[in-house]
Amino acid sequence: MIKIKIFSIGKIKEPWLASAISEYTKRLQSEVTIEWILFKDEQKLYTQAFLEKDLIALSPDGVELDSTSFSKNFIHLIQKNQSRLSILIGGAEGIPRHLLKNTPSFSLSKLTWSHQTVRLLLLEQLYRAFEIKKGSAYHK
Amino acid sequence: MIKIKIFSIGKIKEPWLASAISEYTKRLQSEVTIEWILFKDEQKLYTQAFLEKDLIALSPDGVELDSTSFSKNFIHLIQKNQSRLSILIGGAEGIPRHLLKNTPSFSLSKLTWSHQTVRLLLLEQLYRAFEIKKGSAYHK
Repeated sequence: MIKIKIFSIGKIKEPWLASAISEYTKRLQSEVTIEWILFKDEQKLYTQAFLEKDLIALSPDGVELDSTSFSKNFIHLIQKNQSRLSILIGGAEGIPRHLLKNTPSFSLSKLTWSHQTVRLLLLEQLYRAFEIKKGSAYHK
Repeated sequence: MIKIKIFSIGKIKEPWLASAISEYTKRLQSEVTIEWILFKDEQKLYTQAFLEKDLIALSPDGVELDSTSFSKNFIHLIQKNQSRLSILIGGAEGIPRHLLKNTPSFSLSKLTWSHQTVRLLLLEQLYRAFEIKKGSAYHK
């Protein structure tokens, strides 16, 4: 079983977000367990997240991929890390650049999204990544 | 009052999506009315949508902007069209390129998203566009 930890700021308070997240979590559950590690404070978020050796970050300055390359990259990273991956979603001010020096970082879009939406986007893209690997009809 | 028509495929059947859409529709309602024009069939979708003179399209081949440029571009287009804009979200196969020749088209991301998610992304980015114009704290 693959384990993915997602580090982020805040709670999952919007009911629609909770229900969208639970939908994608259910779809992923046959092969992936998602653990949400949420902080109130950006300092604590970064301190904890950067302790993870298998950390990657979502950042507007990161590499922008299409879904097929995202799938290949993510699955390669997960395999390299013995079925583990930690993903950091930065706070409102973005992740300080000096912290990102040795951390692979990816961008979901040039556009800015709310943190709530970024969580949904990340889960949906992870789900799509595994469907692409399986060669399913979800992604064509 | 600004009126935006959104042309897309399918129903809004997921409860989480309906509730996210209603949240953003509420936030926008003081200045923007959103009308959803949904089709079951891609041919009908394109035939109807391309009758609109103020149509723009969301397409992976479109221009990718950051949120500030998206705001400027969208608000400029809305003003140019006397407070009206029609937006087309393509079907699963994408919008046939020859149809897009004379239609401004924008890309939300290099990644592929479900149509459900694209609707949410579009609404969130429209809301952000108006907040950027107002200079509110929502977008910094």
